[in-house]
Amino acid sequence: MSLFYDSTITIDTQILQFEKEESKHLAKVLRKKEGDTVLFTNGFGLEWKGRIIELSINKSKAEKIDFIQHQIPEHRIHLAIAPTKNNNRMEWLIEKLTELGVASITPLLCNHSERKEVKRERYEKIAIAAIKQSHQFFLPLIHPIITIEEYLNQNYYPLFIAHCQKGNKSLLLQQSTNHDQVALLIGPEGDFSPNEIKMALSKGAIPVSLGPQRFRTETAGFVACHTVFLAHLQKTHS
Amino acid sequence: MSLFYDSTITIDTQILQFEKEESKHLAKVLRKKEGDTVLFTNGFGLEWKGRIIELSINKSKAEKIDFIQHQIPEHRIHLAIAPTKNNNRMEWLIEKLTELGVASITPLLCNHSERKEVKRERYEKIAIAAIKQSHQFFLPLIHPIITIEEYLNQNYYPLFIAHCQKGNKSLLLQQSTNHDQVALLIGPEGDFSPNEIKMALSKGAIPVSLGPQRFRTETAGFVACHTVFLAHLQKTHS
Repeated sequence: MSLFYDSTITIDTQILQFEKEESKHLAKVLRKKEGDTVLFTNGFGLEWKGRIIELSINKSKAEKIDFIQHQIPEHRIHLAIAPTKNNNRMEWLIEKLTELGVASITPLLCNHSERKEVKRERYEKIAIAAIKQSHQFFLPLIHPIITIEEYLNQNYYPLFIAHCQKGNKSLLLQQSTNHDQVALLIGPEGDFSPNEIKMALSKGAIPVSLGPQRFRTETAGFVACHTVFLAHLQKTHS
Repeated sequence: MSLFYDSTITIDTQILQFEKEESKHLAKVLRKKEGDTVLFTNGFGLEWKGRIIELSINKSKAEKIDFIQHQIPEHRIHLAIAPTKNNNRMEWLIEKLTELGVASITPLLCNHSERKEVKRERYEKIAIAAIKQSHQFFLPLIHPIITIEEYLNQNYYPLFIAHCQKGNKSLLLQQSTNHDQVALLIGPEGDFSPNEIKMALSKGAIPVSLGPQRFRTETAGFVACHTVFLAHLQKTHS
């Protein structure tokens, strides 16, 4: 069943009035009829099931049949990443991280950043489309862009930094298994500056390797999150 | 140092004449001069280092200084995947698989395929750009599109199928560690047909899970290859 999104729904919503765009989609694309069921989420774990009681291209309504409030997953991945120069690559990353189920994304301003501004609303739209597509009930939190210094001062989680400088690094896969929440730092195309790496390490960040490849920034972001996800999956299955 | 690509270079190449496009890139973008060194690969593991002896926008030459013939990696991943309807998504996948170092990609024709033709030359161009960018010396082999039946009849490697039907499946991460070469089957958006799954299983394919998420086809393709890569990385580091 198709999943729709409405940020305003709560467990108390009895009657839901759809936006114009969703009314049209239900009526024209999905050819739903009055009496059919629809599934909505608010992106905060709510799965709201309703029955269509009014349906036209402009305005439609459903009444609640049932709901499930999903628990926030214990295992949560937070990615802080310098946005790529090419915005398409960043938008691709937002989609893929959402499919994976990443909890939050923080665009980082670094010394070598090629992009200093991001369109958060656009990123949120992409994430909403992706939760609908991949049938997820949690929307990743997309934070405003901040400097790496600000980020380091406000991060609460065990932090891993995948920088490209030489030095002792362990595999992220082997490092990330013992934490419920994990934060990952991925730098811009020109890597973090030596100063930024020093600052991160002084704040307790653990330097890690993603493997021998030379990944693009957005690839490294996805690969890092997928690695942490797999480490957790492996642990829960062993 | 920037890496260039020329499929015709061998270990015996003494003098290399560049294509017009590369001459221009060397002279105008990289501002190279006569006497500077350049690095080329043929995509078959050759790392050819030369000194520029003639440089103009139209025509340039380098003479060999040194070369390394890299060994074909023992661990090789082969992906067979139904191409996505949206060609951009497929092109993105080709780039990402190349960054990861996948050995071969076979576009599959399945019962539910939304795309029945692919532009191999375009895919190869993307893969060439990606090996240059990620500094790799092996170009993935991109095969012509074939039916899943033909594929199953000619595949030599331990085969894992990530279908979406219910049933007993183990985690790909735990399954894929004991093989040097691994082949992966990823279906179209509407999944493999029951008949295709039956056919694959009868040929010895092992059904596997990539995790609880509902991935898009191209995401599943990348996630599957990255999982096998990580399983191998973990094994070689333990």
